[in-house]
Amino acid sequence: MRRTAFENMACPIAQALDRVGDGWSMLILRDAFYGLSRFDDFQASLGIAPNILSRRLATLVEQGMLERRRYSSRPVRHEYVLTECGRDFRPVLLALMAWGNRHFSPDGHAIELVDRHTGQLVEPMFVDRRTGEPITRERHQMRAGPAADERMRARIALRNSRLPSPDPIPSESTP
Amino acid sequence: MRRTAFENMACPIAQALDRVGDGWSMLILRDAFYGLSRFDDFQASLGIAPNILSRRLATLVEQGMLERRRYSSRPVRHEYVLTECGRDFRPVLLALMAWGNRHFSPDGHAIELVDRHTGQLVEPMFVDRRTGEPITRERHQMRAGPAADERMRARIALRNSRLPSPDPIPSESTP
Repeated sequence: MRRTAFENMACPIAQALDRVGDGWSMLILRDAFYGLSRFDDFQASLGIAPNILSRRLATLVEQGMLERRRYSSRPVRHEYVLTECGRDFRPVLLALMAWGNRHFSPDGHAIELVDRHTGQLVEPMFVDRRTGEPITRERHQMRAGPAADERMRARIALRNSRLPSPDPIPSESTP
Repeated sequence: MRRTAFENMACPIAQALDRVGDGWSMLILRDAFYGLSRFDDFQASLGIAPNILSRRLATLVEQGMLERRRYSSRPVRHEYVLTECGRDFRPVLLALMAWGNRHFSPDGHAIELVDRHTGQLVEPMFVDRRTGEPITRERHQMRAGPAADERMRARIALRNSRLPSPDPIPSESTP
């Protein structure tokens, strides 16, 4: 199993990127969300070299994001479908889509997320699932968990040392 | 300017990955969110080779995610701070963090997002900023925008052909 320099980092973002830190892997997952499942369809959609596609699919299966299923016996053919772990990747793709639409679409959007009832454009925003509160620096902060190492604790301490106060007092001297 | 195979793809996710599709770039942005800004601090945090770090920082500056600022004249030293475009990358990192915590933290979390008022663990969830509705396949769908090409239209058509009905009727024959 090929792993990356991120393999031993005590950070969930590094661990995530250890699995899908390659742009092709994320685009394969994107296409799986569209409903693509067969090798030839991924290849046509991505314009990717077959050997690269083979390797990326094998890694995504190894890492638990895709499941390889036989759909034909003569000839033997397999398709690749999202696992639960793969389906849970959806917010990452939504976040990348929103960011790309906002900053790198000078000629208009190629794709938009819309409300099926109203047809209106949707801007995804993160909230706390439990409270419904928007995630903000005023209301939320990072905390070291049981698996944090020294580097992680140092990063979190730096971050929290620069936090706004929980109930910020408007300043009259704002430049 | 080094670009990738994704440069000419009419897809906001591909355009985003064209800028930050490399795991190191995303971890540099992560560290910038923690408040790191200096070359030596990034290097210590990431354990990255100086030449790779140099190249990634230069690309992130070129692409508009970081701004290079002089903080010392003797000797001349620069720091790297997030631009507005870089700060808008935050939801991608939050989504990666949540996914990594959920699936790749067998020994417990290294970092957690918590509510500063209650101390409770936060699970980020995407909602429509305008309506507050959670983003679901029942309520929301993709639509081709003005910059969509044939490949994008085909993907969206495939996706929407498999959508659940807007007001799904519970089935008694669910296996």
